[in-house]
Amino acid sequence: MNLDADTARARLRAADHAILCTVHDVRGVDAVPVCFSMAGELVAVPVDTVKPKRSTRLQRLVNLERDPRAALLCEHWDRSDWTRLWWVRASVIRATADDAERDHLGALLRTKHPQYDTAPFASLIIFRIRDVTGWSAA
Amino acid sequence: MNLDADTARARLRAADHAILCTVHDVRGVDAVPVCFSMAGELVAVPVDTVKPKRSTRLQRLVNLERDPRAALLCEHWDRSDWTRLWWVRASVIRATADDAERDHLGALLRTKHPQYDTAPFASLIIFRIRDVTGWSAA
Repeated sequence: MNLDADTARARLRAADHAILCTVHDVRGVDAVPVCFSMAGELVAVPVDTVKPKRSTRLQRLVNLERDPRAALLCEHWDRSDWTRLWWVRASVIRATADDAERDHLGALLRTKHPQYDTAPFASLIIFRIRDVTGWSAA
Repeated sequence: MNLDADTARARLRAADHAILCTVHDVRGVDAVPVCFSMAGELVAVPVDTVKPKRSTRLQRLVNLERDPRAALLCEHWDRSDWTRLWWVRASVIRATADDAERDHLGALLRTKHPQYDTAPFASLIIFRIRDVTGWSAA
């Protein structure tokens, strides 16, 4: 049922997207699907230009300035076969990365998503992983 | 880009599962995939017995006792075609429902997921919708 730490991290690293959850001062929580890359203890979420946004002032950034804690959830859903369900959740906190780390995380992101070749992301939001837990039905 | 309120609600109502995000006192936020049903302003999330859990004392319930605010996110992901992406997020608060409302929400849930015919859920967590917003790439 509980995924071991290595399996949970491997599934998160391989996931093609996740849900980023941040703390909102009025609503309590916000959640939005995001692309991301992961290297060691760092995770990068792009502020991209490919998927059109309502505003350049993203609510997720406003939330993170107020409270740097966040969660990243990836999951496998199967409507008909619930023995195949699993999810992995990383508890993360906004962090900084040096240029080499940023370059590496950015390169990983472009490898995962060729869409960024033609429409580069504007910047990266960096997080440090605090804990990864996972659950599997089988 | 922004989905109108009726479209957002219709997509949420039709979604076969969602991510439930709650407030955690240390981690800031928690997130977990859930099944749910929706009727009017009420949403029901089952505490089920089909998908094995680590404990009968679910963290989501501990979180909601401390802070009744939550969010429910459903989304459509497409790895290769980002013009097809969309998501809908409901800001919700834990609430109560009368017996008729509970029966109706429970019946909707069993209609959506035949799995509950053979392994009934133990109880329902009820939320009242405060706001629904949605985004679509196209």
